[in-house]
Amino acid sequence: MLRWVDGRPSETLSSLDRGLAYGDGLFETIAVRSARPRLLEHHLARLADGCRRLSIPLDQALLRAELLAFATQLGEGVAKLVVTRGDGARGYAPLGAATPRRLLFGSPWPSYAPANVSQGVELFPCRTRLAEQPLLAGMKHLNRLEQVIARGEWQEPRYAEGLMRDMSGRVVEGVFSNLFLVREGRLITAELSRCGVAGVMRAWLLEQAAEQQILVEIRDVDYDELLATDEVFLCNSLYGIWPVRRLEGHVWPAGALTRKLQGILRTLLDF
Amino acid sequence: MLRWVDGRPSETLSSLDRGLAYGDGLFETIAVRSARPRLLEHHLARLADGCRRLSIPLDQALLRAELLAFATQLGEGVAKLVVTRGDGARGYAPLGAATPRRLLFGSPWPSYAPANVSQGVELFPCRTRLAEQPLLAGMKHLNRLEQVIARGEWQEPRYAEGLMRDMSGRVVEGVFSNLFLVREGRLITAELSRCGVAGVMRAWLLEQAAEQQILVEIRDVDYDELLATDEVFLCNSLYGIWPVRRLEGHVWPAGALTRKLQGILRTLLDF
Repeated sequence: MLRWVDGRPSETLSSLDRGLAYGDGLFETIAVRSARPRLLEHHLARLADGCRRLSIPLDQALLRAELLAFATQLGEGVAKLVVTRGDGARGYAPLGAATPRRLLFGSPWPSYAPANVSQGVELFPCRTRLAEQPLLAGMKHLNRLEQVIARGEWQEPRYAEGLMRDMSGRVVEGVFSNLFLVREGRLITAELSRCGVAGVMRAWLLEQAAEQQILVEIRDVDYDELLATDEVFLCNSLYGIWPVRRLEGHVWPAGALTRKLQGILRTLLDF
Repeated sequence: MLRWVDGRPSETLSSLDRGLAYGDGLFETIAVRSARPRLLEHHLARLADGCRRLSIPLDQALLRAELLAFATQLGEGVAKLVVTRGDGARGYAPLGAATPRRLLFGSPWPSYAPANVSQGVELFPCRTRLAEQPLLAGMKHLNRLEQVIARGEWQEPRYAEGLMRDMSGRVVEGVFSNLFLVREGRLITAELSRCGVAGVMRAWLLEQAAEQQILVEIRDVDYDELLATDEVFLCNSLYGIWPVRRLEGHVWPAGALTRKLQGILRTLLDF
């Protein structure tokens, strides 16, 4: 598959890269359809925010041009973008001298079961809890051992995703998705100032909710509230929306608001 | 400088490495003196423990042989070892198929001021707090953004290290060191089951304390106790022991037990 480093085809990078040494960087996983990156502005905005928070000086115009050129070559599939602080000497200090590195990876469209969208999924209840670190919360950075450990908790294919809670037991997200509850017609999703990844599809759905005058609550969510809610769904920028059908014996219907949002996604983004 | 990948000279690695993608790996920073890795058994033991906890199947005998050969070539300096889960496909799942990758980096002996050992150092009070994650605590894994951010908090050379506390304000460690308090002849160091790195020099000093019948307390330490204690010192496997002289206007002497441990280090490990 297609792999670029700093805008040129390459399958290797310098072993001095701080992305390897410390996970000192960020990434985006971007759907490419008909040679166009989908939700490009949202991906670029989140990446820019992460770069600002980590003080990684990234050339946004160059990156945008590169992503468009990469999508043209890829055609259909997934473009994963990794931005690191670049090569470093020994030591943690994020010295100004390093030049950020851009990596792009193409892969085929993932083979998720079509029933995940139509009938919904079963969630695995991960024991791995998310640590609370406000300085990193919301960013899609490269320190992802919690997700690696959580995803290692189950192999059974009947679980399409896993539920992640924080150290206090609050409901936060999926391992590679954000989570929404629906209650009395309102959308509820976890506040992500202590942990979690602020997903691009989550951001897009929050904008759509505002347009559609659907009430939204972004706040802490406890486990009992999740179990008692009317509908639950997951989202990310590759698969769109998966209704959650089951978790630890609790069953939810793929309800009206979940179906409505799936319809909007289909209409506006051709999901 | 000398760089090896999987036992052979190389300055690059595959861009699919999970160390880059997720920080999915571990590292050791090893002093090499007279062509021998110092505290080799301690480094290998900690690495083996980390590999077991992260389910990374590493060939320990191969690694030991490689480290010895690398040290022979390096002669004097620092050997940094990175072990990753190896190349991965898209997704967090730590599939059994990946072959772990071993990277070795040589660098010259760091140019710390000799006065750090003789007169002690001033600590910078980092605002960055360590998140509490028992699944990762103690390991020297590659998810090190907290240390990158903390080390970015100061540039003034008068601070040789920074103090890191956890989310509850407890005193844990330095950015690249462990921390000990001395109080009425006893050694006190933070318990590292929620956060922190269990340093190799910390382990060696705890063994020496047992041999010398010095009482040790491994437990939570609060900030007021740090400020009120008799002596404070930092340690790591490269510089040995630095007395802490000052923190936020508080001043400590380089006291008797700190000097005694420095003497033992000098005698037994030629620091």
